[in-house]
Amino acid sequence: MLSKSSIKDLSSILTSKNILISKEECYCYAQDSTNTRKPTKIPNAVVFVESIKDIQNVLKYANSNHISIVSRGAGTNMVGACTCQENSIVMNFSKMNKILEFDPINMSMKVQPGVVVDDIKKIAESKGLYFPPDPSNFKVSTIGGGIAQASGGAKSFKYGTIKDYILSLTLVLADGTIMKTGAGTVKDAVGYHLSQLMVGSEGTLAVIAEAELKLIPKPEANALITAYFDSMSDAVKGVNSIIESRVFPSTIDFMDKNAINTVENFCPSGLIREKDCMLLIEIEDFAYGLENQAIKIKNALKGSSASNVNIVFDNEQKERIWIARRASYAAVTQLAPDVVTDDIIVPRSSLADMVDACRIICEKYKLKTCFVGHVGDGNIHPQIALNLDDEKEFRNYMDAKAEIYDMVTNLGGTISAEHGIGIEKIDYIKDTLDDVAIEYMKRIKKTFDPNNILNPGKIFRI
Amino acid sequence: MLSKSSIKDLSSILTSKNILISKEECYCYAQDSTNTRKPTKIPNAVVFVESIKDIQNVLKYANSNHISIVSRGAGTNMVGACTCQENSIVMNFSKMNKILEFDPINMSMKVQPGVVVDDIKKIAESKGLYFPPDPSNFKVSTIGGGIAQASGGAKSFKYGTIKDYILSLTLVLADGTIMKTGAGTVKDAVGYHLSQLMVGSEGTLAVIAEAELKLIPKPEANALITAYFDSMSDAVKGVNSIIESRVFPSTIDFMDKNAINTVENFCPSGLIREKDCMLLIEIEDFAYGLENQAIKIKNALKGSSASNVNIVFDNEQKERIWIARRASYAAVTQLAPDVVTDDIIVPRSSLADMVDACRIICEKYKLKTCFVGHVGDGNIHPQIALNLDDEKEFRNYMDAKAEIYDMVTNLGGTISAEHGIGIEKIDYIKDTLDDVAIEYMKRIKKTFDPNNILNPGKIFRI
Repeated sequence: MLSKSSIKDLSSILTSKNILISKEECYCYAQDSTNTRKPTKIPNAVVFVESIKDIQNVLKYANSNHISIVSRGAGTNMVGACTCQENSIVMNFSKMNKILEFDPINMSMKVQPGVVVDDIKKIAESKGLYFPPDPSNFKVSTIGGGIAQASGGAKSFKYGTIKDYILSLTLVLADGTIMKTGAGTVKDAVGYHLSQLMVGSEGTLAVIAEAELKLIPKPEANALITAYFDSMSDAVKGVNSIIESRVFPSTIDFMDKNAINTVENFCPSGLIREKDCMLLIEIEDFAYGLENQAIKIKNALKGSSASNVNIVFDNEQKERIWIARRASYAAVTQLAPDVVTDDIIVPRSSLADMVDACRIICEKYKLKTCFVGHVGDGNIHPQIALNLDDEKEFRNYMDAKAEIYDMVTNLGGTISAEHGIGIEKIDYIKDTLDDVAIEYMKRIKKTFDPNNILNPGKIFRI
Repeated sequence: MLSKSSIKDLSSILTSKNILISKEECYCYAQDSTNTRKPTKIPNAVVFVESIKDIQNVLKYANSNHISIVSRGAGTNMVGACTCQENSIVMNFSKMNKILEFDPINMSMKVQPGVVVDDIKKIAESKGLYFPPDPSNFKVSTIGGGIAQASGGAKSFKYGTIKDYILSLTLVLADGTIMKTGAGTVKDAVGYHLSQLMVGSEGTLAVIAEAELKLIPKPEANALITAYFDSMSDAVKGVNSIIESRVFPSTIDFMDKNAINTVENFCPSGLIREKDCMLLIEIEDFAYGLENQAIKIKNALKGSSASNVNIVFDNEQKERIWIARRASYAAVTQLAPDVVTDDIIVPRSSLADMVDACRIICEKYKLKTCFVGHVGDGNIHPQIALNLDDEKEFRNYMDAKAEIYDMVTNLGGTISAEHGIGIEKIDYIKDTLDDVAIEYMKRIKKTFDPNNILNPGKIFRI
């Protein structure tokens, strides 16, 4: 807890409404959406910043008093990136949620870090523009968190991830100094790309105070193709055939049998329960072009034992299927007291091997697991239902996790595609990252944050 | 010049054929394609590395002897990024020009730094895949240089620049240590994005030894729409209307009247000489979709006083027009002994203002200037014909340049979009970049290269 004089100091640099100090209130911000850890360290205070000046003041205070700062948007991340350490203040961005500029001609938008991703998408779409990144929590997660965690989403296959949509950032450094990175133009070859250094840095290098985002023209229409397969390797063959036919879908997602059945039990959506897995392929184009693309996909899938191939143009029907896909996490929560979602990626040619190996590992440790993910990217999310309070189950989970990461690394992949490292994967980065790269990341961290006050203990240990 | 014993040292770590030491031979590598500087410093030696081991050995030698290393691909950059300083060795990558892996299923390619960009494009296309970056020198320039200079090209509008196609890099650091950045997967949220830090770093942070590149499905067909306008602002209006119609062209380039007439004098290509400027709009799609898109563009252009709108499907005819556009630089060389090409960018809404202001500045200083560039991105390349040996003309050019950069910065743009900074723009980065950002770039430089041996004196002065 902060001393009375410290509270007074902190309060004096913010309006009183913008600070929480009671143990009960602070407890609510000690933890994010990660299921595997119960809060052990409660922040000294939670401050709701409203301006760059607020951010500066809090950082100056924290830096000179050696108090840690945990930046927090909606707290939706699943790797413990917003968990608190001893002697920390949570900097909450929910009041910095304004769209500062929307320039449809330049196809750009300048936003505060607490803006919800869905709001950016909707405002862009009101002028026929598009902000493609769609992490599955985009209806609540904020852009600041998306940048900090290098978020992706279902549309990454065609459109890339949040990192590809940053034109410039306004940052506040550990000592309160403001730094502007990038020129705000769509191309920029002036010096080192410091904006990109912030992507995935999880609040450990600087605090994101503003972000200027790139938008693109929004395709006129879309269609969804669903198809079922007898095995993951057939599904992957199907994906390869689609690409060979030169169709470039925006999304190639999948659900396995467990995920389908769990969702159908939870909210019946008309998915077929008997097959091993299904693909959800979204194409985007002018309305006149969709049918041709869909037929190309249907033809491409003929060689891969696909069945029940269905082309959906109707918006309501499409939405129903996407809701089923996105409901997977919620559905899995019905199976056990807790759910942990992982995020692993391999080159697509190893995807079937990764899913098969994951299934074997989870069976070995008796973990009920549903698989969903982004096949096009080689990225899957095993959703594991378990009781974390059951010591044996927890140990099984930890053992399975270690084996899964080992397997992924051996298949040429890596342990995080779009969720980050946080504290959940901190013990494993040495197995997946080059030692020299880790060493230089630490040196960069030290350059930006010599007192190690910015979200310490995340990504790697200093 | 190197001492005899130094030459012996250097030779002993490479095969004898791989080193040039005569003054005449070294002179040829003292300079790149930049026109404004005559070589004053000649490298001590030019070494042709053939392996990562070679790179390591040369760097270790240079680092312990405090000799500068200038990495060089094809030497096509135009900002003096490959010019030599006192006591330097040129590390030439022309012998490291192998495609190491091409994996069509994963849509990736691993290459050595000396591979010519066009070779990457052609090999990708042999399997229906696409490496979109197309800097105008892509038939000779190398991928290592492209990454180092943050290259773009005409297709950046839709597809982004080289930075968007890097999956992983193998680097050799100043002391000879190898560092691998990135996992090679299309998404990667494990720690800081060190690969992106290398983009645009101009060989000042590390030497790029290998690059793993992302490919995408190649559209089946393309078409070119040309249109002429009475003013730049009409042309920009036309571009805005195209985007409003939701068409997403791969390229929106332009040539102004001076460029058109200079090209027509040099190689008659059937361009219309009388209008103020022309747009070249490329669309890519399945063959069945092209005509519809082209008609949408034609309709969109109706409101912007466009004339002579022509839709070209025929490959030969398209190629003839693109050759004319790319011949612009060669054509301008006919006007005066020297040509300098600049590279400036503003938000697209300020593009007409930038071109108009540029024209006024160049007229004021009596500089014959042709304008070409990438309107979609807000990026233009003024090509200035002059005699650099004429002291007055050179002074005029330098004054004009300073005024142009000032104007660009005032319009919210920046002084390099896709060429880099090198030595040509080093005096101006303080006017366009944030002071704090420059300071942190310097600190990062020091972290990676404490002895300042990697291409010193480029981007900023230490």
